Amino acid sequence: MDTTEFRRRGKEMVDLIADYLENIEQRTVYPDVEPGYLRSLIPEEAPEEPDTYEDVVKDIERVIMPGVTHWHSPYFYAYFPTANSFPAMLADMLSGAIGCIGFSWAASPACTELETVMMDWLGKMLKLPEDFIAGTHGQGGGVIQGTASEATLVALLAARCRAVRMILASDPQRPETGITSKLVAYSSDQFCATLGTTPSCAFDHITELGPICNAEKIWMHIDAAYAGSSFICPEFRPLLNGIEFADSFNFNAHKWLLVNFDCSTMWVKKRSDLIGAFEMDPLYLKHDHQESGRYFCTDNSLFRSLKMWFVFRIYGLKGLQDYIRKHVELAKEFESLVRADQRFEISADVVLGLVCFRLKGSNEVNETLLKRINNGRKIHLVPCLLSGQFVLRFALCARTTESRHIREAWQLITQLAEEVMQELPH
Amino acid sequence: MDTTEFRRRGKEMVDLIADYLENIEQRTVYPDVEPGYLRSLIPEEAPEEPDTYEDVVKDIERVIMPGVTHWHSPYFYAYFPTANSFPAMLADMLSGAIGCIGFSWAASPACTELETVMMDWLGKMLKLPEDFIAGTHGQGGGVIQGTASEATLVALLAARCRAVRMILASDPQRPETGITSKLVAYSSDQFCATLGTTPSCAFDHITELGPICNAEKIWMHIDAAYAGSSFICPEFRPLLNGIEFADSFNFNAHKWLLVNFDCSTMWVKKRSDLIGAFEMDPLYLKHDHQESGRYFCTDNSLFRSLKMWFVFRIYGLKGLQDYIRKHVELAKEFESLVRADQRFEISADVVLGLVCFRLKGSNEVNETLLKRINNGRKIHLVPCLLSGQFVLRFALCARTTESRHIREAWQLITQLAEEVMQELPH
Repeated sequence: MDTTEFRRRGKEMVDLIADYLENIEQRTVYPDVEPGYLRSLIPEEAPEEPDTYEDVVKDIERVIMPGVTHWHSPYFYAYFPTANSFPAMLADMLSGAIGCIGFSWAASPACTELETVMMDWLGKMLKLPEDFIAGTHGQGGGVIQGTASEATLVALLAARCRAVRMILASDPQRPETGITSKLVAYSSDQFCATLGTTPSCAFDHITELGPICNAEKIWMHIDAAYAGSSFICPEFRPLLNGIEFADSFNFNAHKWLLVNFDCSTMWVKKRSDLIGAFEMDPLYLKHDHQESGRYFCTDNSLFRSLKMWFVFRIYGLKGLQDYIRKHVELAKEFESLVRADQRFEISADVVLGLVCFRLKGSNEVNETLLKRINNGRKIHLVPCLLSGQFVLRFALCARTTESRHIREAWQLITQLAEEVMQELPH
Repeated sequence: MDTTEFRRRGKEMVDLIADYLENIEQRTVYPDVEPGYLRSLIPEEAPEEPDTYEDVVKDIERVIMPGVTHWHSPYFYAYFPTANSFPAMLADMLSGAIGCIGFSWAASPACTELETVMMDWLGKMLKLPEDFIAGTHGQGGGVIQGTASEATLVALLAARCRAVRMILASDPQRPETGITSKLVAYSSDQFCATLGTTPSCAFDHITELGPICNAEKIWMHIDAAYAGSSFICPEFRPLLNGIEFADSFNFNAHKWLLVNFDCSTMWVKKRSDLIGAFEMDPLYLKHDHQESGRYFCTDNSLFRSLKMWFVFRIYGLKGLQDYIRKHVELAKEFESLVRADQRFEISADVVLGLVCFRLKGSNEVNETLLKRINNGRKIHLVPCLLSGQFVLRFALCARTTESRHIREAWQLITQLAEEVMQELPH
């Protein structure tokens, strides 16, 4: 395929994508396929000779779509949102074409530099303490990771590096081997300090944890994977109070901030802790600006910051705040619907865009209700377990979800609940 | 931005990308900017109100392009290739629009299933032993990772899981704590068993290492990050002999197989080792097809297998083989040019698409030559250190590199070499 054909196929693909997202509401949100469905639909081996492009495109509807869970359908309320916006998609197209691997400043200066500046922009949108901003002379700053798990691993390795350095500084005679096996990490069953847990969007009290960590010289990493995006709104920013005690902080802009996956944004107060943990210096990565050009490991970024740049500029801060607020309002609206029905109860405070609820009654009746909901395939939810209770999670996810969708969802849920309650003791 | 505007902007972006790649040869391959150049070109904070899309697009040339190292210019010979093809870009556009997160089968069955089948297709293209193919009943199979480093980490954790299980099986009374701190990993200074190292594309003797690992029940992981793509050609497949001894194998399809980053393809003989190391079972990830639907952790894949599917079908196996062979032939041609010049020497066997060479003389003279080459900004190379010698690496990288480009590169190198040799003792 040459550039001439790409011009044609690329434009067809733009229309295919626009058609898909324009009509996504008509599709079954949760696919009705059995494990292994796909293998029988395509050959067992790659073709020797090229297939035609037309055949490949036809197979999108024949092979792929029947097995897609449509995360961007306004009837999708499972897990947490994952971002999907047109500005981010346009930036991703450009990023793919430039196709640079940013493993050092010299490998693509624009890639490293835009990432650092975009992380400053976002840090300022969140009103992070100055310590986390790189600026021109700061010691901290941000770097994009793939997922919150990756950010946690990176934080753990940076914490280990700092602990070893501290121990060696206080006792320079001590041999370095053996130190790491004596280090301890503290966590809850959600791991590290978390703002907005996955099951119920619960918040740790970081203003209580923080001073203890600081006094004991324990590295504090805060994960706000889902909730972090909301902190760009002044009314939700207090949820981040205590951030000044943290050594590192992470949230997923690819969840709720309209920046397509992957874009897990992580900040540290001292870049030197990260550099110490990840530095590697083979000759083929050295360059003339080794020192001044080193922000830090940009994590094989394929220009993920381009997505941030496009999204922040084309929405503007106000547009992003409006988007967050709309989801929270819709969650509050759904909460009111639940509270108005005496058969149901709310299982956790509704702080942002997640409503945890259940039928008053046994776990069994709630499990049956959820199964009925998902088997209907009109809407899609997943459960969680809170203090032993089986709970349904209703997460505002899609960019295009409106009040009418959640009212429709609630009507369906109550109708199925009625059926289930007639059949089962509760 | 709504779908109507996206249709327009998407098509403009397709043209922008086609123009960029069509004319990439005219651009300076290695950018002439100082660290920090970008920050002064854009505002210090995100805008409150939206910028216009036109302004954002104008800034691509003003802000981004001056700092881009053009990895897909036919004058780029640094590091190793990174893939960039039109079929992969088209698939990535679709993948971004579907925007699903494949952390379980139910989260998007097509995503998990296509990945497993595409890894089988690729495994068969490489003629991997049957043990590594998932098929409908196999115990092994493939999974896509982000990078070869990630694959190595995954292999390490799977190896640890298997070792702990083996130790506990032989001594069920033994407490599980403390076992892992006694485990040992063996590596060379390139880490694990490597086929095609980064500095010089050297090959470990896996037919010698393998039987020892098997006899001692040591997990053998083989990394063929760059070289792996070549094994689809029968004439290069013998380089993979000994793979039958390995427990896991990895190479980067995103390097030399025309599948855009990221697509680091990894196979294991026993999926249960991976599942054991990575399993996590919160309620919100459980689904009705938990057992039969579990291939394994698809690593938050955003449908990376779509890229493989598009590329394998639109090129066909023969098209991919032709592409590999063309790069190897160009490397051989460059090698002949070097060998024909008595002032130069070849520093390592030229097996695939990398030529390591140097001026006969001091490291200083070679360092000066490289600096002169890169400062000229017409072509871009990086060095390596082989047995204490400073060596220049000439790696065939871009999809569009032709004989005329490497002849032009050689002419430039010899001209600069002449200058350097006149100035410096050698």
